[in-house]
Formats: sequence, C-alpha cells, structure tokens
Amino acid sequence: MAKRRIRLGVSMIGLGYHLAAWRHPDAPAGGNMELPHFVRVTQAAERGLFDMAFLADGVGIRFHDEPKGALCRTSKNVQFEPLTLLSALAMVTRRVGLVATASTTYNEPYHVARKFASLDHISGGRAGWNVVTSVTDMEARNFNRDKAPGYDVRYDRAAEFVEVVRGLWESWEDDVFVRDKESGINYRPEGLHVLDHQGPHFQVKGPLNVARTPQGAPVIVQAGASDQGRELAAATADVVYAAAQTLADAQAYYRDVKGRMARYGRDPDHLKIMPGLMAVPGRTRQEAQDRYEALQQRVDPLVGLAALANYLGDLSGYDLDGPVPEPPNRRMHSRAQIFLDIARRGNLTIRQLYLSIAGGNGHRLVIGTPADIADAMEEWFHQDAADGFNILPPWLPGGLEDVVDMVVPELQRRGLFRTAYEGMTLRENLGVAPATHRRAEARKRAAMAAALGSAAQ
Amino acid sequence: MAKRRIRLGVSMIGLGYHLAAWRHPDAPAGGNMELPHFVRVTQAAERGLFDMAFLADGVGIRFHDEPKGALCRTSKNVQFEPLTLLSALAMVTRRVGLVATASTTYNEPYHVARKFASLDHISGGRAGWNVVTSVTDMEARNFNRDKAPGYDVRYDRAAEFVEVVRGLWESWEDDVFVRDKESGINYRPEGLHVLDHQGPHFQVKGPLNVARTPQGAPVIVQAGASDQGRELAAATADVVYAAAQTLADAQAYYRDVKGRMARYGRDPDHLKIMPGLMAVPGRTRQEAQDRYEALQQRVDPLVGLAALANYLGDLSGYDLDGPVPEPPNRRMHSRAQIFLDIARRGNLTIRQLYLSIAGGNGHRLVIGTPADIADAMEEWFHQDAADGFNILPPWLPGGLEDVVDMVVPELQRRGLFRTAYEGMTLRENLGVAPATHRRAEARKRAAMAAALGSAAQ
Ligand SMILES: Cc1cc2nc3c(=O)[nH]c(=O)nc-3n(C[C@H](O)[C@H](O)[C@H](O)COP(=O)(O)O)c2cc1C
Ligand SMILES: Cc1cc2nc3c(=O)[nH]c(=O)nc-3n(C[C@H](O)[C@H](O)[C@H](O)COP(=O)(O)O)c2cc1C
Repeated sequence: MAKRRIRLGVSMIGLGYHLAAWRHPDAPAGGNMELPHFVRVTQAAERGLFDMAFLADGVGIRFHDEPKGALCRTSKNVQFEPLTLLSALAMVTRRVGLVATASTTYNEPYHVARKFASLDHISGGRAGWNVVTSVTDMEARNFNRDKAPGYDVRYDRAAEFVEVVRGLWESWEDDVFVRDKESGINYRPEGLHVLDHQGPHFQVKGPLNVARTPQGAPVIVQAGASDQGRELAAATADVVYAAAQTLADAQAYYRDVKGRMARYGRDPDHLKIMPGLMAVPGRTRQEAQDRYEALQQRVDPLVGLAALANYLGDLSGYDLDGPVPEPPNRRMHSRAQIFLDIARRGNLTIRQLYLSIAGGNGHRLVIGTPADIADAMEEWFHQDAADGFNILPPWLPGGLEDVVDMVVPELQRRGLFRTAYEGMTLRENLGVAPATHRRAEARKRAAMAAALGSAAQ
Repeated sequence: MAKRRIRLGVSMIGLGYHLAAWRHPDAPAGGNMELPHFVRVTQAAERGLFDMAFLADGVGIRFHDEPKGALCRTSKNVQFEPLTLLSALAMVTRRVGLVATASTTYNEPYHVARKFASLDHISGGRAGWNVVTSVTDMEARNFNRDKAPGYDVRYDRAAEFVEVVRGLWESWEDDVFVRDKESGINYRPEGLHVLDHQGPHFQVKGPLNVARTPQGAPVIVQAGASDQGRELAAATADVVYAAAQTLADAQAYYRDVKGRMARYGRDPDHLKIMPGLMAVPGRTRQEAQDRYEALQQRVDPLVGLAALANYLGDLSGYDLDGPVPEPPNRRMHSRAQIFLDIARRGNLTIRQLYLSIAGGNGHRLVIGTPADIADAMEEWFHQDAADGFNILPPWLPGGLEDVVDMVVPELQRRGLFRTAYEGMTLRENLGVAPATHRRAEARKRAAMAAALGSAAQ
C-alpha cells in the first residue's frame, strides 16, 4: 500500500485570509476582483502540488457593519462568483483541484448538479463542491426571507439536497454515448436513468442534462462543525474542511467524524479531514513573526470589533482592554463557541481576542521556520488529528508562495508530501473512493442475473 | 455618425443547429461535451469579428421522447452549463461577446445577477444574458412542479426578475473602491447602494457582492415572440433574438417591437433586432445545396416526427406523406404557429414539414453562394427587418467556418460589416446604449443640488 501522505488545499478567498490582507503592501491594486491575481494563486498552488484550491463563498455580504463604519474598512464586500471563476481558472491550470462553495439553503439541486458536473468536464475531473448551509440573515434577505432557517431545517434540506445532486450525477452511465453516426443511435437508452426523486424538500424528475463526469462525481467537501454537520460529512463527504485550535480538539473531532462513518458502511480512509491552518513561514522565526506582526498592526479596531460582532454581537460598549464579557447577541454558529474558548483559555481582553482571530478566524495559526510548520503539520498528521490541511495564507499570493517555496520542500524531504501528482483527477490525487454508479451497477446485476437464469433453464 | 453595420451572432448549441448535425462526418467524436470543440467555435467567431457567440439553454432535456425511441436518436441530451462554459471560453478569446441563456422561471435573481456580473469581470466586459422563460413541463419537473406556469405568471415574474437583476448591478458605483491601504478605507460608503426590492415575486435586499462590471451591466438579450415577450424586450433588452421566415413577418415584428420602445423613453437604435438565420454557403449553389441535402438525408423519420411533436403533439398516427392535420396537442409556444404557417403556405406533407424545420427549426434558411447569402442579409437589413443576424450553422465548427471564410469577406466588401472590432466590450461593439447607473446619478444630482443650495445661501 502506498505511504499515507499529507493532503493540502489552499483557501484563496480574496487577497488572503487575514482581516488586513488587503492592506498588505503586495496586495494587488485591483483588489478582490482582479483575474490575474487568481491565476497567479492557482498556478502557485499547482506548482506546489497542492491537491486543491478552495473558494469559500457567501450569497451576499456576510459581514455585519457593526459597529457602523467597519464594513467599508474591510475587503469583505465583493468577489468573483466561484463557479464562473473556477471554470476560467481551469483553463490556466492542469492538475490542481478546483473546489467551489455552493450553499444548499437558497439553491436548487438541479442547478448545482449541472454546474459542478460542467466544471468537472471543463477541468478534466478536478471539480469539488464544498457543501454549506447559509447561516447569516444577511444572505436570507437576498432570497425572499427575513432570517436564515434554523439548524434542523437547514441541515435537513442540505442532506436531501446532496442526495438529489448525487442522484442526478448518476443520470447517464459512463459508456452510454455511442454516437453511431451510421445507425443514428446517439445513446443506448438503457444507460439513461431517470431519478424521479420525491422528498419533503425536493421533487426532481431528472435526468441531468450533463453527461457522467470525468470523476464520475465531483468531490464532496463539507464544512460544518455541529452534530448535524458532522453527520452529513460522515454520510456523504470525501473531504472535511474543519476548524480546530488544539491537538486535543482536533483529535476529538477526527475520532468522532470518522467513527460515524461505519453507520454508512464507509471506510474511514475515504474521508480526508483537513483542518484549516494559517501557516506563516519565514527564514527565521523572527522574520516570520515580523511578517505576521506587520499585518496585525493594520487591523483597525473598528474592524476587529466587527469581526467579533459577527459571532458574539457588538461589544463596542465595553472596554477594549477589559475582559471579554458574556456575549450580548451570540449567533448561531459553531465558531462562536471556539472564540469564547480562546478568550477563556488565554484570559484575553477584547482587543487581544480580536487580534487573536484577525488572522485565522478561529483556525490554527503557526508562525515559524519551514521546519516549525512541518513539525506542526506532522504532529497532527501522525496523531490522528488530520489527514491534511487547508492552508489559509494570511495574504495572497505571497503567503501561499512562501508555503510552496519553503514548507512544501521540507514536507517532501520528510516523505510526508508528494513529489508529483499521482493522478489526473482530484479524486485520484486525494486518494478517496472512486465514485460508484449505483444505478448502473444495479442494472448490470439484474441483466447478469437474467442471463444466468435463462442459461440455467 | 458611423455607418450602420450588420451585427452578427452565432448560436453554438452543441454540434450545430440542424437536427442531424451530430451525424455530420466532421462532428467531433466526443459529441456535445468536448471542450476543444467549443474553443474552436468561439475562436472562429472571433476570427470572423462576430459580435457574439450565443448559448441557448434549458434546465432539463427539452425534447419529448415522442414517438418513443426518438430521443436516443438525437443529440438533444447533454451539454455544458452555459455560465461555466463561457467563463472557460473567456480565457481563450479576447473580443467576441459571450452570451448565455438563463431562465427567469426557476432561478433566483441574486444568483443570476452574480454569475453574469462575474462573467463580465472575467471576460473584460463581454458578457450577455439571454433572458428566457422556461416553457416546457419537462423542465418544471426538475424544480418541484408538474407543469410550467402559464404565460402571464412566467412573464410577470420575468419582468420583475430583470428589474431586480438590473437593480443589483447598481449596487456599487464605478469608482467606489479606493482601497486606500494607508487610511484603511476600502470603499467610499456613499457609493454603496442597497436595493431593498419588495415586489410580488421577489424580496431582495442586496447589495450584490460583485463590483460594478466593466460594461456597467451585461448586455440583455431577449428571445420571446409573444405580446409579453415583445413588451419585455422593448422595456429592457439591448438585443432581440427573433424568429421569422419572411420579409413581411420580420418587418412587422421589427416595427412592432421598436414601436413599443417610445413608451419606455428608449431610442429604437438601442435595441438590435437579430433574427436567426441558418446560412449554408457553398462555392456554387449546387455545392451549398449538396451540403445541406447530405444532412437532410440523415434525419431519421422518428426524429423528424419528434421535432414536430414538441410543438404540435404526436403526429405518428397520420400518413407521413399526407397533409399536416389540425395538431392534436399543440403546445404553448409561439413557434407552433410558425410551423403551421409553413405547412399551410407550402401545402406540405408531414414529412415535408419536418424536413423543412429540421434545419432552421422555424428560422429563415438561406442556401447558396456567399453573394446569395449576403444579398439575403442585405435585403432584410436595408428594409427594416433586421439590425443583424444570429447565425445558426447547421453543423459546427465547419458550418460557421464557412460563413467566416466566405460570407464575412463578402459583407465587408459591401461595407456592411466591420473589418475590425470597434471596442473592447460587447456593448461597444454592438453599438447599444452604455449602461447608466441610475442610483449613482441620482446621488450625484442630489449632492450637486445641495452644494449649489449652500453656495446660494
Ligand atoms: C471551516 C468552515 C468553513 C465554512 N465555509 C463556509 C462558506 O464558505 N460559506 C458558507 O456559507 N458557509 C460556510 N461555513 C458554514 C457552514 O456551512 C455552517 O453553516 C456553519 O458552520 C454553521 O453550522 P455548524 O454549526 O454545523 O458549523 C463554513 C463552516 C466551517 C466550519
Ligand atoms: C428565438 C428564440 C430563442 C429562444 N431560446 C430559448 C432558450 O435558449 N431557452 C429557453 O428556455 N427558452 C428559449 N426561448 C423561449 C422563450 O423564452 C419563451 O419561453 C418561448 O418563446 C415562449 O414565449 P413566446 O411565445 O413569448 O415566444 C426562445 C424563444 C425564441 C423565440
């Protein structure tokens, strides 16, 4: 069996993951909507042999202007729509996986199934779908609602949504299109499967009007930490994008999610758990620290307070240098608890808390030499806390290029990371299960049984 | 004033517009889902200085398997999703416009506004949206419904849908993103407009999370021939994709739609009416005719009947070589009437009728020398029947390459067609009105009035 190796993704949200990324001296003048910027980022990821480049997404601005005046001091405003952007980036890359976030809350499964299938064809089998539920009321208001639906409704809909999408991806068998110009037969009719889904949220007839894709089915990524989120991941995901700060928390999460998989008859190896990791390498620890500090100093206090307000409510009535109070208006998000844990654990002031999350937003942060960062990865990787990492560069593209040029070679030296892509598709590179075609298999089993039966007569 | 010139688009649906296109000897073996095929098609359109390449779309298979066994003898089954495909094609072209169809019937305006805005950014201002209402029950069944909603509901929703999308495209003023790294101001808050739309179909708060696009707003194309469709076009479209067979019909349509524009305070010149035109050039008339005949002979009778069934209901109980009966199950579509008119006008048999629409599907068909085709265009162009044409190549890419290599030079010789692109954006090339930003203008007027007022004090 091949040696187990670390999987790497990169989150390429805008100009970087850090709140002040857009104020970095190297940040492109055109901001979040400069196409060459994203070309450079994905090409760097591919040069670094990353499994995938990952686009978070919201169907609306997801940052409260609270305290007022904060929003215009952030770059949390505009961005490319992920499916269109990744389709464009597919044309300037050859191997790196392309993962887009699409919400199950305000979408229709038929549209989502089509778009990801289409991206999988365009990219030659490199598409992935990060399945999320939309949690903010700000997004709800763009879709005929005042408030986001509650947890159970959102996750119930999400589970059915994924089921419908996977069903639609099985509309056509792999080898159904014979396209015989002479006889005039374009496809073999027995290889077309009509889904006819009738569920509480969705009634979807099908078939999908996109052929079976190069990967069979795009990779499914799940990002959600609650009980419902974990169950959805155990049932259907190939990758989990997780958030944990400590080894113990990550181990508990890893054990819990992998443990749930048996219920679905799945091999735990077929779900890659990849926590977010803000990695800030420098040739020396001091250089790394200085780089990070330069960004930290650019966090406007208004923006820091707003970053907290998004999870804990507005704390601007409290002393910035006093303790973090019991949150006045805590929001429905697993990260609210992570932030409170950070504050309690470190006994932090409000200012210290927002500075501590300005970079990683609740994800793990490692600042140091390439060896320090490789050590940090290796520890979690070898101690059942992670199968890989979703790298969150504080600024882009420099923060990613540093990881590619400094950390990747160190991981390779240790035999922890590939030195060439293993396959052509994202599934192959990740080493997750090939997509099965349950309907085709059932049809073929039935045909074989019928043939054996008639032979026995 | 610049000389009025013919506008050209090309419909690049699958392997060509003709029912038997996929059986053409040159049709790519990979069928409708081969990316290099579409690269070649759009690059040919750009070489021919076409205004735009156009993708029709359905949110489901839109072809009845009636009589049974017909569907698998067509290529009306799978295709790329248009927004993803055009985003990819934007990377391998520089000037040609990229127009995708998106239905207003089963979509949300926020999603549609985002995707087209994103494509406009990716392509540097070359995006267009073909606004349609989804008419088939087959599509309805993919979206929790049994049947498509009736005309009035569909068009009522479509009109409000377009209004919301255009409003969302005005979320940000052009020069709002100052991105001042020193002061920490990312955008000027007064340049952000919150739509807050409250209508019968949609309640959409906004703002859009995509910046104002290079074109200001993607070009709006409308394809719909009913009274409601014409009104929508007169109110909001930059281009109409029409269908007419005779000069008189085209003139009546042209006059009617342009006549409706005054009601909306619009200049008739700012709406380009582009009927579909299946053009089949050959070096001689005989060669052209032979090319077309070779395809006609590949129309399976089952497929021919099915093509009729989609509009008139199943005629397979009748004699193929007998007259066209009163249709048993006529569908809600303006093209049903066009087909009946064709049959009555020519006194056609069922076989003759399906053969007469197998190519152009109700659009005008011209087979001949480059001069014949240029004559046919010139006539309509000069006699108030068309501002340009949406070319429907019977097969692709050859059928388009023939037009580019033979007909375009003839049009240029006559001074009827550009010899170089006029501008960078689709709007500039089409010569339609620049997109205004009504909210920005209102704000600036108010600010100026306030300044004058205080100066006068
Ligand atoms: C690591 C991580 C990344 C996420 N990325 C997105 C995203 O890009 N877009 C989005 O709308 N929601 C995103 N979510 C939100 C989840 O889908 C979910 O709504 C939210 O986490 C609340 O559910 P939970 O308590 O199960 O985590 C993300 C969540 C996590 C934990
Ligand atoms: C030339 C033309 C092209 C059209 N293209 C599409 C298309 O690509 N997808 C679609 O769903 N409907 C398409 N339609 C359908 C229209 O949006 C509309 O639903 C249909 O024509 C019925 O309305 P009408 O009677 O106003 O034409 C097209 C219609 C016309 C006339």
